Amino acid sequence: MDTTSSADTGEWLDSILYDENGLVPAIAQEVLTNKVVMFAFMNRESLAETLATGNATYWSRSRKRLWRKGEESGHVQKVREVRLDCDGDVVLLRIEQIGGIACHTGRERCFYRKLQTVDGQTAWVTTDPVLKDPEHIYT
Amino acid sequence: MDTTSSADTGEWLDSILYDENGLVPAIAQEVLTNKVVMFAFMNRESLAETLATGNATYWSRSRKRLWRKGEESGHVQKVREVRLDCDGDVVLLRIEQIGGIACHTGRERCFYRKLQTVDGQTAWVTTDPVLKDPEHIYT
Repeated sequence: MDTTSSADTGEWLDSILYDENGLVPAIAQEVLTNKVVMFAFMNRESLAETLATGNATYWSRSRKRLWRKGEESGHVQKVREVRLDCDGDVVLLRIEQIGGIACHTGRERCFYRKLQTVDGQTAWVTTDPVLKDPEHIYT
Repeated sequence: MDTTSSADTGEWLDSILYDENGLVPAIAQEVLTNKVVMFAFMNRESLAETLATGNATYWSRSRKRLWRKGEESGHVQKVREVRLDCDGDVVLLRIEQIGGIACHTGRERCFYRKLQTVDGQTAWVTTDPVLKDPEHIYT
């Protein structure tokens, strides 16, 4: 699949520093809430497709294939901005989360646990509610 | 260095899924601007020290030692909240960036480049100014 237009040389894809597996970490931040909702990996092909379609496309390391976010759930991420860090090895996607659910647990974001210390005991505490039962998301 | 208090069993540290090198990706988000400013790695020791000191401490893969953010520059990150993702393998630090500079290039954030397409040509464009010359940051 050639996702670069005839005029696009793909230099922007070459300037990214991929790891030994051809992957680059990607952070997804929701533009309306400014919340960091997800973390995943991308490869060259998923980045090209993301730009071409405007929908966040990641690389699934477990399934070893392109992961078109929302392909099953409908919870597509519309990409409003793509940013690159100083070392050129991390990507930040500023996205609009369709359906308001980024996490496969049915929550707004994957970072739904917060570290809390009470009476000297530190623990991860779930702060975000399940908005939709995953059984009804993935049918 | 034992950074856990006598009452703290460190269970919260055990429940994190570290990679084969004992590391976990960490995203730093500034609480006042909501901007994602940095991406780095942490290990168990750096997480414990971060909780104990309240200052973001990472693991430097290049220097193979604890990286107390701001130790040279003074650009310390005061940790206001620590979050964990659904898989337990990514950490989100909500921090207050002392000095307003998170990047070693002297910029507010490491993600200072933005993908732009003009006339069919896509390129990374620097959008953020250098706030302080790195030569004057690292003396």
